[in-house]
Amino acid sequence: MAERPDRTEVTPVAFLERSAGLVPEHTAVVHGERRHTYATLAARANRLASALRGRGLEHHDRVAVLCPNSPAILEAHYGVPAAGGVLVPINIRLHAREVADIVAASRPRLVLVDRELREGLSETDLDGIEVVEVHDSGAEDDPYERFLAEGSPEPVESWLADEEEPLSINYTSGTTGQPKGAVVTHRGAYLMALGLALECGLKGESTYLWTLPMFHCNGWCFPWAVTAVAATHVCLRKVEPGRIWELFEAERVTHFCGAPTVHIGIVNDPAAHRLEQAVNVPTGGAPPTPTLLARMEELNLHPRHLYGLTECYGPHTSCTWDPAWDDLEDDEQARIAARQGQAFLAGERVRIVDDDMADVPRDAETLGEVVLRGNTVMSGYHEAPEETEEAFRGGWFHTGDLAVWHPDGHIELRDRAKDIVISGGENVSTIEVEQVLSRHPAVLEVAVVATPDERWGERPKAFVELRSGEEAGEDELIEFAGQHLARFKRPAAVEFGELPRTSTGKIQKHVLRERERSDQTPHQDRAIST
Amino acid sequence: MAERPDRTEVTPVAFLERSAGLVPEHTAVVHGERRHTYATLAARANRLASALRGRGLEHHDRVAVLCPNSPAILEAHYGVPAAGGVLVPINIRLHAREVADIVAASRPRLVLVDRELREGLSETDLDGIEVVEVHDSGAEDDPYERFLAEGSPEPVESWLADEEEPLSINYTSGTTGQPKGAVVTHRGAYLMALGLALECGLKGESTYLWTLPMFHCNGWCFPWAVTAVAATHVCLRKVEPGRIWELFEAERVTHFCGAPTVHIGIVNDPAAHRLEQAVNVPTGGAPPTPTLLARMEELNLHPRHLYGLTECYGPHTSCTWDPAWDDLEDDEQARIAARQGQAFLAGERVRIVDDDMADVPRDAETLGEVVLRGNTVMSGYHEAPEETEEAFRGGWFHTGDLAVWHPDGHIELRDRAKDIVISGGENVSTIEVEQVLSRHPAVLEVAVVATPDERWGERPKAFVELRSGEEAGEDELIEFAGQHLARFKRPAAVEFGELPRTSTGKIQKHVLRERERSDQTPHQDRAIST
Repeated sequence: MAERPDRTEVTPVAFLERSAGLVPEHTAVVHGERRHTYATLAARANRLASALRGRGLEHHDRVAVLCPNSPAILEAHYGVPAAGGVLVPINIRLHAREVADIVAASRPRLVLVDRELREGLSETDLDGIEVVEVHDSGAEDDPYERFLAEGSPEPVESWLADEEEPLSINYTSGTTGQPKGAVVTHRGAYLMALGLALECGLKGESTYLWTLPMFHCNGWCFPWAVTAVAATHVCLRKVEPGRIWELFEAERVTHFCGAPTVHIGIVNDPAAHRLEQAVNVPTGGAPPTPTLLARMEELNLHPRHLYGLTECYGPHTSCTWDPAWDDLEDDEQARIAARQGQAFLAGERVRIVDDDMADVPRDAETLGEVVLRGNTVMSGYHEAPEETEEAFRGGWFHTGDLAVWHPDGHIELRDRAKDIVISGGENVSTIEVEQVLSRHPAVLEVAVVATPDERWGERPKAFVELRSGEEAGEDELIEFAGQHLARFKRPAAVEFGELPRTSTGKIQKHVLRERERSDQTPHQDRAIST
Repeated sequence: MAERPDRTEVTPVAFLERSAGLVPEHTAVVHGERRHTYATLAARANRLASALRGRGLEHHDRVAVLCPNSPAILEAHYGVPAAGGVLVPINIRLHAREVADIVAASRPRLVLVDRELREGLSETDLDGIEVVEVHDSGAEDDPYERFLAEGSPEPVESWLADEEEPLSINYTSGTTGQPKGAVVTHRGAYLMALGLALECGLKGESTYLWTLPMFHCNGWCFPWAVTAVAATHVCLRKVEPGRIWELFEAERVTHFCGAPTVHIGIVNDPAAHRLEQAVNVPTGGAPPTPTLLARMEELNLHPRHLYGLTECYGPHTSCTWDPAWDDLEDDEQARIAARQGQAFLAGERVRIVDDDMADVPRDAETLGEVVLRGNTVMSGYHEAPEETEEAFRGGWFHTGDLAVWHPDGHIELRDRAKDIVISGGENVSTIEVEQVLSRHPAVLEVAVVATPDERWGERPKAFVELRSGEEAGEDELIEFAGQHLARFKRPAAVEFGELPRTSTGKIQKHVLRERERSDQTPHQDRAIST
């Protein structure tokens, strides 16, 4: 007998070949004026794979990509693994120094770089690394197009012998410390894509708008999930709310993803209006506030709250709606929708554990660490066995996130371990304080961190961005918080102004925290005494 | 480090535990007046697993089930594999002699048998086999309920060490010869369920009506697919069209499956009417005729033509609609919808090969054998290495079905190898002749087989069931066929009357064929000469 007919190594690369076979003329990619059918997308991905092999790519050689959401980075999600290479998508908002660190750590054979991001490689040692510039024009003289022309539109022979081989290395966005490369496998990406497609209701008629960067956890595996069902990708180089509203209508978008901060920009855009089609909006990065959830529903945008990390391919849990909740009050529904829920199809049941890895009580009160298991947990940090062992202690991936466990098994994040405020021996969840303040009508976004306090050790302090044209004073907000929170949880102070963000748009609480720590004058015990 | 957190052996058993955790109060099973929530279904499946272990079940021991579509057989699809057992679902329409053969071949430790099917075990040697009778009453004194009461509602410890372990053995319905047991694995069933759920658009709000027997290829894996998305199962002991129309309305059914013969009964029932909800109808067993496809669409029943075999867990290909076909004429659309299409997500691309395993040309004309590969091909025939090797020759599973390959890669079945009629050296597809005759308004169902012919070797002969109240003569039907078919394809004769069927409702062409072969008087060359 030759090979076993009952065993195929699963890989998301197969999705494109299959969709191109089934619906070759269906629109796979929209990018400005350009439209590629599935047949074209498959031929381009094959050309990329073939051109990489032609340049001498060997099995598991890395190929880095420094591109915004454009056809090139989508094609790289197929062409690089099809060639047997390992994709290294680099965050385009990093400093040139950070890019250099990632290139040094991953040692790619070739880098695809968008013309506008050439500066990002300025500090990188490119000795021995080929660089292909992407003009993102689709024109014949585009160096990327010339590179594709070196290859054949026919598929290259697969080198995949084991579905647990690496597919990509995704460097964590690194709010602190040296970036670590989470290794994603073919098996994990395949199972994640199927679970995600089911979870988010993707089908052939769906249209997915690329607001989420593909460099970020491989766009939560949507490059594969959307293609698995032969839906349409709409690329977008920049998150511009006005343009997004145009595309919602022009392309009849049915799905897009993002962090709450992206959605806040979209719902507050002057072009915002209720859409005819219902739009499914997987949302992660931070819990959406009840205020945001309600506003999105008004516009026919239906957020589904996901939670995860780069180390688990992006989202891992989903707040799946239980029809039993339909009869609850709106407030209660919004409160529930802000929970992180439980693992979706690709993962095992998420646990919340204490320091001894024992389950914490499901009392919605006891804080513990979120730990994960499943086929969509990274296979480890690239060439970092000690960090991997530390993260995997006890046979579970340790997220470093703190949460409570509800009696129904759903989890609710309270904080990153380092974000917790310990005030007079009591843990204060900065997320809880943020959720309350975000309900104030003048507040656009808010971040709460610890500030040193002589009497209590630490106290919460709020940093607030107000809505344009709105006003609110420090005392007003502290009093507002006091209406909903225990005394010790009320912010000691409120500071107004623009919030510092990471390159992916996450609020950099560590910047605020460090600013507070370096401030040697502890705040007075004002909030408690008033 | 303890276990790897990044590797879980996949199994459909996990779907129930997950859905019960997420939506415990959602209706999992409807069976007449009985309704079980997901929490209840999980507790009952756990009790079954625990009771089996209590009776001494060891890893990979078989548990046979002889039950119509009822909660017991659904629970067995979870409880048996959860216990580490291997499920053997037995076709309830088999003769007692055939049941005895399957029990002898699979040697189960225990048999679950519906009270009404006790007679089915009358010829079986039950020495050393425990029998639990299912009254399907749900009452405390039901022996099956007493059996469940022996177990605990908590999950038993999993013994699954490798996802490629056997989950079930499914004996082929056996139109000829000794039944062979196709071995289904946990991995295959898990991937099949996800692929099927995506292919058929299952989601949490779906309601699946059990017209397809669960003993038949594990109900095409729908016991797992429906549960994976936490949709609702509606059980049905018997296919009664009147009752089916009641349930369509009362339970707002969104999905049901079956062979065309089932659908013919449904669309011709006096209660047939256009439904408010669109119903997705995966259809297999034989190609639906254009006439049937059109009638179903009128009633808001949307057939999706699937093709497969017990050896590939049920369906393997799907005629996925290409939006490029939307502009074709209705006739052309119906013709395309009757094709078998291509593999859906769980399988590799299906090939049509000649005797040397070379691809036949994609010319829509050259006949070849359909061969399959993928994770949803059986791991082999149970304890039959020679038959397995024969079926797996060249590293592909040989279906024995003949088909043509269209230029777009879709396949179209022409016949089982043994169903082909070879007339004057020309192959005549009996399916092609059947499709034409089924378009005649008086024809309800038709089967075409070879009849011996002195001059041509063989000729096609049609066996026809007419619609009640309709009339048509032999000459009229032969002439009708002649308007659409080449001379040599026209039936030599037409015989009217009820068609012989297998226990699963498939027309037994082999019975007709044998009848014709034993008839020593070859038919005159009438059709050709007229």
